[in-house]
Amino acid sequence: MKIVVLKFGGTSVGTIKKIKKITEIIKNYRKKKYKVIVVSSAMKGVTNELIKKSRNISENFSDAEHDVLVSSGEQVACSLIAGSLIHKGLKSRSWMSWQVPMITKGSHKNSRIYQINKNKIIKYLKEGGIPIITGFQGINNEERITTIGRGGSDASAIILAKFFKAQRCIIYTDVEGVYTTDPNKLKKAKKIKVISYEEMLEMASLGAKVMQPVSIQDARLNRIDIEVKSSFINKPGTLITKRSNIINNKIITGISSTHNDSKVTLIGVKDKPGVAASIFKPLSINSINVDMVVQNISSNGKETDLTFTIKSEDLNKTKKIIVNNKNINFRKLIFEKGVSKISIIGVGMITTPGVTFRMFKTLANKKINIKVISTSEIKISVLIDKKNTKKALTALHNEFKLDK
Amino acid sequence: MKIVVLKFGGTSVGTIKKIKKITEIIKNYRKKKYKVIVVSSAMKGVTNELIKKSRNISENFSDAEHDVLVSSGEQVACSLIAGSLIHKGLKSRSWMSWQVPMITKGSHKNSRIYQINKNKIIKYLKEGGIPIITGFQGINNEERITTIGRGGSDASAIILAKFFKAQRCIIYTDVEGVYTTDPNKLKKAKKIKVISYEEMLEMASLGAKVMQPVSIQDARLNRIDIEVKSSFINKPGTLITKRSNIINNKIITGISSTHNDSKVTLIGVKDKPGVAASIFKPLSINSINVDMVVQNISSNGKETDLTFTIKSEDLNKTKKIIVNNKNINFRKLIFEKGVSKISIIGVGMITTPGVTFRMFKTLANKKINIKVISTSEIKISVLIDKKNTKKALTALHNEFKLDK
Repeated sequence: MKIVVLKFGGTSVGTIKKIKKITEIIKNYRKKKYKVIVVSSAMKGVTNELIKKSRNISENFSDAEHDVLVSSGEQVACSLIAGSLIHKGLKSRSWMSWQVPMITKGSHKNSRIYQINKNKIIKYLKEGGIPIITGFQGINNEERITTIGRGGSDASAIILAKFFKAQRCIIYTDVEGVYTTDPNKLKKAKKIKVISYEEMLEMASLGAKVMQPVSIQDARLNRIDIEVKSSFINKPGTLITKRSNIINNKIITGISSTHNDSKVTLIGVKDKPGVAASIFKPLSINSINVDMVVQNISSNGKETDLTFTIKSEDLNKTKKIIVNNKNINFRKLIFEKGVSKISIIGVGMITTPGVTFRMFKTLANKKINIKVISTSEIKISVLIDKKNTKKALTALHNEFKLDK
Repeated sequence: MKIVVLKFGGTSVGTIKKIKKITEIIKNYRKKKYKVIVVSSAMKGVTNELIKKSRNISENFSDAEHDVLVSSGEQVACSLIAGSLIHKGLKSRSWMSWQVPMITKGSHKNSRIYQINKNKIIKYLKEGGIPIITGFQGINNEERITTIGRGGSDASAIILAKFFKAQRCIIYTDVEGVYTTDPNKLKKAKKIKVISYEEMLEMASLGAKVMQPVSIQDARLNRIDIEVKSSFINKPGTLITKRSNIINNKIITGISSTHNDSKVTLIGVKDKPGVAASIFKPLSINSINVDMVVQNISSNGKETDLTFTIKSEDLNKTKKIIVNNKNINFRKLIFEKGVSKISIIGVGMITTPGVTFRMFKTLANKKINIKVISTSEIKISVLIDKKNTKKALTALHNEFKLDK
């Protein structure tokens, strides 16, 4: 069977008009002789509305009941899509995750789908039906409704693609694809035709919020081709695939930037094993997300300087935690608000020497000072003054010819 | 186990504030050492909102998907109630009908619960849990979600009370109970403390819309005591029970009235077998509800006059159907708009002679002309001019001392 999994996000099913629109998209795949499996999120806004209700009852609303509550959103969307397809003369029906069933492990609000019983869906596909399956949820071994923590309906789509050996998994969303950089920040940004899982992972975790990193990682591990495209405009999107599928002469695929970061530096930290853990453990417990971490070897070999970045909204909380941390010693604490991280990403840099130099030179030419540098195999990140973000993005976009 | 089934209607769970309020009601039953089973409808307005969405997709929206769609409403309400009880420190959880399971027969939108697997709920009750079960729905043998046609969540509550041998089934709603007559029409109307199933059936089918007749009939067949009361005001409601439980010196329990009816009379119909069927069959096919039917024997023995009432909104349709009906012959057709049916109901009239006379005399004293009369064992209905409705209600309410 030639199977394709189509996933529709909340904006794609946000109104009845949009649901009618995606009915046409689904119909077109049927015309191409695909067996289509549809996964849908809740209509935009519905999940938040439901969560608001639960918060009005309790700030600590039961996790198990939270899952029952919010899972109703996908149920509504799926029945409307199925009803719309039936209205157009197609054979379709909604499938709740307990009907498939899609079995999850883990705690409520944070489960993971690990098993799908394929029999009923396979039978239904063979009969010519189009199953519309609820994303973002499953049932656990006690037959209770669960929701999956990270990745949401994207993760549901990818695991369905894996179990049903789909030829492709298409993520329909409100953007046209993945861009060389955020089009809201740089007008010259161009849609990327094809990108590797690894590059996409770096792009996603660095701020290109097209897909959740956990879902991209799932797709990568299972070698599932993903296409991200718009449900509103009929244009090719961005294909996310394995590196060997990509013939690309570009060194850099994309540039990402963060905003509203703060830099924290501890000067003269005792350089002994476990000191980093002592610093980051209380931050982690307090849900403070630490991003870049850079540690320099100190001149005397006994002390070191440690720098890391956090979201600026966490700055006060972080200050308090570090000052009250009795397990660490340091000579001086420096905070800097208003910094921004610029990263260039591309598998091409592995085989191309001098990328780092080109990046630094480009920024130097624009008189942009680099505060911190951090590199991985396929990305280089630098921390700069927030006010220089746009200038840096533009210069780097030009330097690596991303608009060509 | 001393079990009580509490059913909350849409208005009782209409807002978060009201859900918090019913949490207290449930808690109080627990304090009285009852094992409590809760059944809930969807929050007021939700079901209509969902149906509106489906209609925007198709006027003939799939029945099966309709059931999936609207059943989400009870899911939301039940999770919020359970979450609210958990927040108050009680052991509770929501149960979707597929989790119980509650098995239905019949077509979508019009199913009937015929089997409840009690094991899981019994186990849960023994563990001290309060199950919150979705009303108005079930699953069929193919594990698809169904909704039950008539009676809605009331019917769910009564069938649960039957299967779990509950001591009582309490229907919480937005009225304080059943009244001697519609309080909106007559201020003197009084709440009835206790009423027999049979009287309630006559009251319900005659316009006292507290409970669906089908649910009352279910309760009657299974000898389940029902109490109808308000979820907003802590006052005793109306107990619906079997006749032998009622010690009552009142002859008449209540008076009901319809409004906006029309009377249709066929003069000189051929008096032969099957003629009534020939008249009513096409009306039934066209969903026209025929209420009172009265047939007089004609003087010559060959012809008869037939009178029946319908809702005035069906009058034009009815005219057309009768005129085009080739299977019937009649000499003359008379229509009268603006009539109202007044009924007095009470098991007491079985053993008390002269009730009919008292009713007619009371109306005659007020110069109210009676157009049609129809009687059953426990009720007498008369058709009068709509403009006399209030006058008739008041006079009869006084005559039978219902405000005492």
